[in-house]
Amino acid sequence: MHIQVDRKDFLEGIQIVQRAAASSTNLPILTGIYLAAKEGQLELRATDNDIGIEYFLPVQIREEGEIVLPARYLVEIARRFKPGEIKLQVAQDTYTALLESGRSSFELLGFSPDNYPERVTLGQGKAWQVEQSLLRDMIRQTAFAASHDNMRPILTGVLMNFTGDKLELVATDSHRLAFYRTVLPRTGGEEASMVVPRRTMEELARIIQGGEEEPVTIQMTGGQVCFSTERVRLISRLIEGKFIDYRQVLPKEYKTRVRLETGEFLAAVERAAILTQDRANSLRIEVGDGLIRLFANTPEVGKVEEEIQAEVTGEDTSISFNSRYLIEALRTVEEAEIFFDITGSVSPGIIRPVGEEKDYLHLIMPVTTRAVP
Amino acid sequence: MHIQVDRKDFLEGIQIVQRAAASSTNLPILTGIYLAAKEGQLELRATDNDIGIEYFLPVQIREEGEIVLPARYLVEIARRFKPGEIKLQVAQDTYTALLESGRSSFELLGFSPDNYPERVTLGQGKAWQVEQSLLRDMIRQTAFAASHDNMRPILTGVLMNFTGDKLELVATDSHRLAFYRTVLPRTGGEEASMVVPRRTMEELARIIQGGEEEPVTIQMTGGQVCFSTERVRLISRLIEGKFIDYRQVLPKEYKTRVRLETGEFLAAVERAAILTQDRANSLRIEVGDGLIRLFANTPEVGKVEEEIQAEVTGEDTSISFNSRYLIEALRTVEEAEIFFDITGSVSPGIIRPVGEEKDYLHLIMPVTTRAVP
Repeated sequence: MHIQVDRKDFLEGIQIVQRAAASSTNLPILTGIYLAAKEGQLELRATDNDIGIEYFLPVQIREEGEIVLPARYLVEIARRFKPGEIKLQVAQDTYTALLESGRSSFELLGFSPDNYPERVTLGQGKAWQVEQSLLRDMIRQTAFAASHDNMRPILTGVLMNFTGDKLELVATDSHRLAFYRTVLPRTGGEEASMVVPRRTMEELARIIQGGEEEPVTIQMTGGQVCFSTERVRLISRLIEGKFIDYRQVLPKEYKTRVRLETGEFLAAVERAAILTQDRANSLRIEVGDGLIRLFANTPEVGKVEEEIQAEVTGEDTSISFNSRYLIEALRTVEEAEIFFDITGSVSPGIIRPVGEEKDYLHLIMPVTTRAVP
Repeated sequence: MHIQVDRKDFLEGIQIVQRAAASSTNLPILTGIYLAAKEGQLELRATDNDIGIEYFLPVQIREEGEIVLPARYLVEIARRFKPGEIKLQVAQDTYTALLESGRSSFELLGFSPDNYPERVTLGQGKAWQVEQSLLRDMIRQTAFAASHDNMRPILTGVLMNFTGDKLELVATDSHRLAFYRTVLPRTGGEEASMVVPRRTMEELARIIQGGEEEPVTIQMTGGQVCFSTERVRLISRLIEGKFIDYRQVLPKEYKTRVRLETGEFLAAVERAAILTQDRANSLRIEVGDGLIRLFANTPEVGKVEEEIQAEVTGEDTSISFNSRYLIEALRTVEEAEIFFDITGSVSPGIIRPVGEEKDYLHLIMPVTTRAVP
């Protein structure tokens, strides 16, 4: 293998695939990046056997070949090289790579490509296309609500539900739930439901950070999903099991509706949260008289009261929520105004944007009994 | 106590003094900030008994008084308040403070000011004045070289040596040494030598980050030093003992002098350091033929060779240095070019700026034997 590649392009590629490389493992080869130069392209791959990322970039090839190089060193070296061309030559018999740029020259010991996992090829399956920026936004607004508790693996994933011309994303840790629905104009109408690991969704959101307007193709076969653009493919296992019936938890009506400026409400909750330090981060909310009031207290430290003028519809009410859940939900909201609906003393509060543009909501269960620390 | 103060000014003050408050301690009152409103001024103080910081700001006083409030909460609350006025009222009998801003209202439990350490007043002593930006620069170029090893407390400090019209700062961990000398035009010529704890120096550099051109007054009496500007006073104990005789270690002449672009040399050392992973971070340097060459290798990973064209005076040579010491020294250098002097195989290498503007140097002992990991 003997290629010449622009440092910036190369670095972008290896930094993207590196995210899938194992950081430490019984199989050292999985801490590496597989590189193959063939037919005018450099193929980069990494996998930790949970997810895999592939990246393709055009390069000048003098001699085709393949090698596996340690991801951490490869990224660090490319990152520190000056802008310009990098020459990469591999001694195929010793699995040693020579990386040169300007007057810097690195000899890096690699692994035999023969021992690296084969490229995953997905069989015929269902496929959809979603705009990159839309998908990124949907992930940002939902994935944070997935559970970190591996006792219920199904809740550590994000549900992707394709029904008719719609795509719904749902994540919940059973105390709060995030829901985002969108219309997919160019879908073929294939229906499917899959639960994608939270980490896969977060890596996907990172990969599609670039402003490219080409859509993401989503393919599902068996227990796997593949997200791909022209340059990148992200392959992940799916989580098996049945996701909760989220439609049943979405309340149909409200008892009290408060219309609020998102930023003002978030700032007030963040301030009050300084003094919500019990296990449930309890923040008491009172609505009435065209006002929403927040109360919190921490024994031995002090107490806080916040007041915001708001447009209130429906009954006066008093209820407690976990301040952290409110903050995490409100931080994802980009719209200037929200509706905050209270549906009952033991049923969820709902945050949704004012306006028709986006169809999403955040559901938060109230704190019914004060947790004993 | 009842005052009104602009949030921005108040926050600046409490954030500065908070740095001296204890983070956790057997004496909870030391995690607090002492506030006293008196004669049109708010006095803020914190101390962990090692260092103390005081800050003064003009405020509107409706009622004089004093209180000690928990630093962490006070800062967090002020930070999250909206821009504008904060009203602070203290119930002197219960040591409770009411903080109000807009429609936010916090009740914060404090401590009795009677139990807070008295303000330190220094007796008559020696005094000097140094420009803020100069002092900050001197600290930045020296303090990093002080030792972290508490077995030799004297080396955990920075020597401040006032001689005639000069001020010298010196720090060393016995493997490397940083030295900075400057002329103090407005000094009274008082002579003194003191060793200031590294943390004190670093806090001082932080405090004088502001662009104020008023000089810092340095006062020394007994075992204490006080750095003050109009608004802030930083008081610290000094480290007792005799500092090493740094003049004796400074080499008088060189065997080999290399004139280098600082940025190019630093980048090459940083790259090569990717593969200096033995205990001594050994980086081999060869000088000759108008070139400086860097070599490093890490078994099982690979090796690197860097080459830089340079103006070489004196003998060809080959020597090893700790790459981390080179990097830390070079990162503080702001000048475009340096002289890198090699003085012998077991005597130090010296980095100093080309040009007469600043009088400082970094001394680094060579790696003589390869450390066994």
